[in-house]
Amino acid sequence: MTVPTNTPAESMTPQEYGVGARFTVSVYDSDYVSIILGALREADASALTVETNDISTFVTGAEADVLGYIRDVVAGAARGGAHVSASILLSRGCPGELQCELPPGVFALAADPISLEPAGIRARAHWSLYPLLDAGSEGVSNHMAPIYAAVERAKEDGAYSGSDHYATRLDGDLAAVLQTATNAWIAVGREVQHVTTHLTVSLNSPTTITD
Amino acid sequence: MTVPTNTPAESMTPQEYGVGARFTVSVYDSDYVSIILGALREADASALTVETNDISTFVTGAEADVLGYIRDVVAGAARGGAHVSASILLSRGCPGELQCELPPGVFALAADPISLEPAGIRARAHWSLYPLLDAGSEGVSNHMAPIYAAVERAKEDGAYSGSDHYATRLDGDLAAVLQTATNAWIAVGREVQHVTTHLTVSLNSPTTITD
Repeated sequence: MTVPTNTPAESMTPQEYGVGARFTVSVYDSDYVSIILGALREADASALTVETNDISTFVTGAEADVLGYIRDVVAGAARGGAHVSASILLSRGCPGELQCELPPGVFALAADPISLEPAGIRARAHWSLYPLLDAGSEGVSNHMAPIYAAVERAKEDGAYSGSDHYATRLDGDLAAVLQTATNAWIAVGREVQHVTTHLTVSLNSPTTITD
Repeated sequence: MTVPTNTPAESMTPQEYGVGARFTVSVYDSDYVSIILGALREADASALTVETNDISTFVTGAEADVLGYIRDVVAGAARGGAHVSASILLSRGCPGELQCELPPGVFALAADPISLEPAGIRARAHWSLYPLLDAGSEGVSNHMAPIYAAVERAKEDGAYSGSDHYATRLDGDLAAVLQTATNAWIAVGREVQHVTTHLTVSLNSPTTITD
């Protein structure tokens, strides 16, 4: 999608700014096809554009709608008790498929933090946050400060469960886990144009450690 | 792990430079526990440090050893025909758990590209490559050039299958898919200190589209 070069930043839709996700829900159960189809049927995609293939599903729309949808699909898949792993990528500030197709003069666009209703199911996640080194990053002088601020906020949110190599651990209701990562990504996105964040989420694991 | 501040860059081990991976293998089969345990038993971790928990597994060592191990675990899990999805994160240039603990004066460290023996099983993947905006990126002036060069090389390698939102599609032998992403990550790592790359890999999907 190409945004006309005279589009004022403030009038961009989330889709035009490249706000969205790519995710895969893996169900450790031989009945996974019906479990996943059932979860998709329950989730509301009416405010979103959704495109799926055999590898992962692309979703674009406003942050709250995208994450509400992901929460519902993942929770729906896990509700019957099957062990589920979800791999989730959130991206903002780089619409288009290879080049970041934003008009010049569009800097980082802020968004409101989201507040997701609880899913009623516990999740643990490895979470990574990536402010990207590309055309939108000139002039950003204190690169790590937004990351550290985001992790501090995660600690206050209550979902923070420690640091591991390459990732932060989150633990709590699925909605709280998604919301913590999302709001950090949105916060960094106020200062850096192109920001992605990745989550590997585990639900109903037979080996969950309650530490 | 803290590297002493007088460690010459050239003498750093891959572990000291933070070379490694975090991955999760998801098996869409009710017998997943024995399938995954069997795959782990077949894979050679002797040159590596491996730490696992309920969410994902951390591996550190030289690039070729890390990726050979991941190839073997994923191929082992898929060899019986079960649908498998693997979520893989590769990272270099940021050892430590939250802060990138590298001594001053250590710039980007190069490594040789890897050459993986084929796994004998087809994989399709969504691949994202992230040069990171942090303390190791000052002075890098042409940020997107290494990314575009990496994708061009992927096209030459033969595993390139097109671009999707937020990710490049790869398709081929599992080893070729892993090698393409890895060598692009290594190549960008010659110019940018902290580089991560993510793969969502699908094997034995019931809905693979042969386009």
